[in-house]
Amino acid sequence: MPRIALTSPSVGIRGLFEYRPETGAPLKRLAHILLHGESPLTKGERELIATAVSHGNGCKFCTMSHAAAARVHFGDQHDVVDAVVYRGDASQLSPLMRLLLEIAECVRIGGRSVSSELVAKARQVGATDRHIHDTVLIAAAFCMFNRYVDGLQAITPENTEEYLQMGDRMATLGYDIEVPNAAR
Amino acid sequence: MPRIALTSPSVGIRGLFEYRPETGAPLKRLAHILLHGESPLTKGERELIATAVSHGNGCKFCTMSHAAAARVHFGDQHDVVDAVVYRGDASQLSPLMRLLLEIAECVRIGGRSVSSELVAKARQVGATDRHIHDTVLIAAAFCMFNRYVDGLQAITPENTEEYLQMGDRMATLGYDIEVPNAAR
Repeated sequence: MPRIALTSPSVGIRGLFEYRPETGAPLKRLAHILLHGESPLTKGERELIATAVSHGNGCKFCTMSHAAAARVHFGDQHDVVDAVVYRGDASQLSPLMRLLLEIAECVRIGGRSVSSELVAKARQVGATDRHIHDTVLIAAAFCMFNRYVDGLQAITPENTEEYLQMGDRMATLGYDIEVPNAAR
Repeated sequence: MPRIALTSPSVGIRGLFEYRPETGAPLKRLAHILLHGESPLTKGERELIATAVSHGNGCKFCTMSHAAAARVHFGDQHDVVDAVVYRGDASQLSPLMRLLLEIAECVRIGGRSVSSELVAKARQVGATDRHIHDTVLIAAAFCMFNRYVDGLQAITPENTEEYLQMGDRMATLGYDIEVPNAAR
């Protein structure tokens, strides 16, 4: 049950965006550019980073919804999402993605825990400035989104099917959209 | 020394905003609405929450710059900023602000650490939904900004005078602005 009286029946962070549209607008825009904008990382890789960070922060709503979006992007290889997030098995990933996920986990713990050694290891397997920038900002942004959702106890559906629909919508349309009532 | 090659000499988070303007734009907009937009909290109170969270996260750049902005807003009462942030003495604050700072600290630790009891105590001394919403989102947003700055080791000036100028500019002009080179 949310800690404040929301103004719409929308679940999760969308209910918070609609409670205060002035902050909802830049937050949706940020999520969209980070996860659907131009990047050297695929949309699936970026959703995987978002999901892993959300799982680390114990945010059920963000983990379930972004895992569903990541599975859509990975298509035939969708099992990699559950392997990485829920079974801690990153063996299907490239060395680069494994190190970017390590950087994301350091950012999750705290910005100062990212070490020069770890960044150097990522560069040795092909990480560019933009790989490092986008990984750090996605991880940092989900440390915000997760706290916003759980700090206000946003509505978190229990029904797995709802997350599959959300994931389809997130993977297809992205984040900087108005969702009509019928599709919530 | 930053972990990526920045594209401008701007210090702190501004150098990161300019490295990737597509994400910089919504991030600046978010900061401006949170700290300068309409709210039941004064600008000084909001900067104080931002400073306390940044200090808790060990982010020197954000702590020094937002403390400077908060002191400008508090004017004659500016000593309250150093008392709260650096000496852990909140005795000059109202019971409401003390509890909102407790909520912010819980959000900083993790969204799920905000308890129903703490929110109820804040409501007993006058917290409205918007007080609670704005406190949670400011704390959550600085958990992002702090990690973005420290995860990429943004340029952190050692000279106290630079932060005083930043604080003046932040308190006067806010965040959703282009800063000309000369004023950086």
